[in-house]
Amino acid sequence: MLVVKIGGGAGIAYEALAGDIGRLVAEGKPVILVHGASDATNELAGALGRPLRLVTSVSGYQTRYTDREMLDIFIMASRALNTRLTAQLQRVGGVAAVGVSGVDGAMASARRKDVLKIVEQGRRRILRGDHSGKLTRINANLLDGLIRLGFTPVVAPIALSEQGEPLNVDADRLAAAIANEMAAETVVYLTHAPGLLRDPEEPDSLIRRVAIEHLPRARSFAQGRMRIKLLAVEEALSGAVTAVTIGDARRSHPLLDALSGRGTVFSRGGVA
Amino acid sequence: MLVVKIGGGAGIAYEALAGDIGRLVAEGKPVILVHGASDATNELAGALGRPLRLVTSVSGYQTRYTDREMLDIFIMASRALNTRLTAQLQRVGGVAAVGVSGVDGAMASARRKDVLKIVEQGRRRILRGDHSGKLTRINANLLDGLIRLGFTPVVAPIALSEQGEPLNVDADRLAAAIANEMAAETVVYLTHAPGLLRDPEEPDSLIRRVAIEHLPRARSFAQGRMRIKLLAVEEALSGAVTAVTIGDARRSHPLLDALSGRGTVFSRGGVA
Repeated sequence: MLVVKIGGGAGIAYEALAGDIGRLVAEGKPVILVHGASDATNELAGALGRPLRLVTSVSGYQTRYTDREMLDIFIMASRALNTRLTAQLQRVGGVAAVGVSGVDGAMASARRKDVLKIVEQGRRRILRGDHSGKLTRINANLLDGLIRLGFTPVVAPIALSEQGEPLNVDADRLAAAIANEMAAETVVYLTHAPGLLRDPEEPDSLIRRVAIEHLPRARSFAQGRMRIKLLAVEEALSGAVTAVTIGDARRSHPLLDALSGRGTVFSRGGVA
Repeated sequence: MLVVKIGGGAGIAYEALAGDIGRLVAEGKPVILVHGASDATNELAGALGRPLRLVTSVSGYQTRYTDREMLDIFIMASRALNTRLTAQLQRVGGVAAVGVSGVDGAMASARRKDVLKIVEQGRRRILRGDHSGKLTRINANLLDGLIRLGFTPVVAPIALSEQGEPLNVDADRLAAAIANEMAAETVVYLTHAPGLLRDPEEPDSLIRRVAIEHLPRARSFAQGRMRIKLLAVEEALSGAVTAVTIGDARRSHPLLDALSGRGTVFSRGGVA
């Protein structure tokens, strides 16, 4: 079992990815594809004349403030992208793909954050009315069932709150949580970079191997979104997963290349 | 097996419907819920400043012209509504609902119309670039599988074209086609009216029973959307389905009332 996470942005070789997934599934290796939706959400918010509000949490992570209206925009954008990816996987990959989100069969439960603790112009403050969530539980029934029926799940990053309402969740961490609950051996994160770089401006500065005990040091090289990705890597490696690769989404075989070790490979077991 | 179709409009008692579905599912009766998305699509198109274009086909049916951009809007609006309905069914109905569209597992295939033959200002003309489709095939694998796993499918009216692209399809006819392929006994259409009325302005003019041989006469009373609904009723009754009810979506037990015969009941077998 393999869990693959891709971003929702421009420049990602979706067709190539669909081909790679088709090959793995044809070889009898089940794949779960998890996708983000940030770019699609930003685009739709822009078209609707709704300004984005990016905030920095007190722990230093940048996140989007998701009020009720932004949640609706997020749901529309992410489920539309999900539908397009599902169609493409069938068209290009020859795979019986099925699009789901964490709402379906209560597959992903989350606790609504509601109150965000942020830093703005150097000062701490509280921001209320947020509709994003922190994952609390993955229920494997639906994904298990779909895979046993021969389907390939495509997962949008929406979870169900304890009150039964949809919430925006981080797709990187959702992929890690699903991988652990499904006892996947491997997680691949495909992104707009060759992997984790010592210097984000320098593609040649790729860090090739990181043993889990060196994750804190690796984290010192990460900036922006890569910081959340490393948090997700750590969460994935805390459970059943034995290896995580951050690979380049822009290659002609993004997934097969990542599986053959191209990118940054994080692993348990002391092999550096 | 029961197939229920609801509109996507305001004034529909979704909570009440979720409660009714929850009761039937708890009694061991599987339900498939199919929903429309016209109102949600119109609303989003309006917010995006995209004018709707309603056209009348040469056969007299009113339909929305779906260019590429309107297809994107339709997909966003319908999958977002699907997510909300799925969450609500779980919250209110206690049902393990799973949202799908015809794209998932190629559940609904359609032929793209591309060319619409319309009548405009009394003259026939051709309109190109449409992205709606005519259903060609229902593949029951996914719905069958989900129901056997104990899930309740919630279906958005999107199909997969022969070229592997999403298409807008009519939800009423999709419900009829699913009912036939799944060998459902009963289809219930819930709408903004007590049923088929002799006079659409007069709620007391409800037609209570229509045997299939009297459908052509019943059709003479139908106007607007009700004409397509009667086409769907006819398609449903041409297969496995033995009874179709058009019932009132605004009641406090919309589905249970329709199943107990409230509304217009269409049936095979000569019982008028």
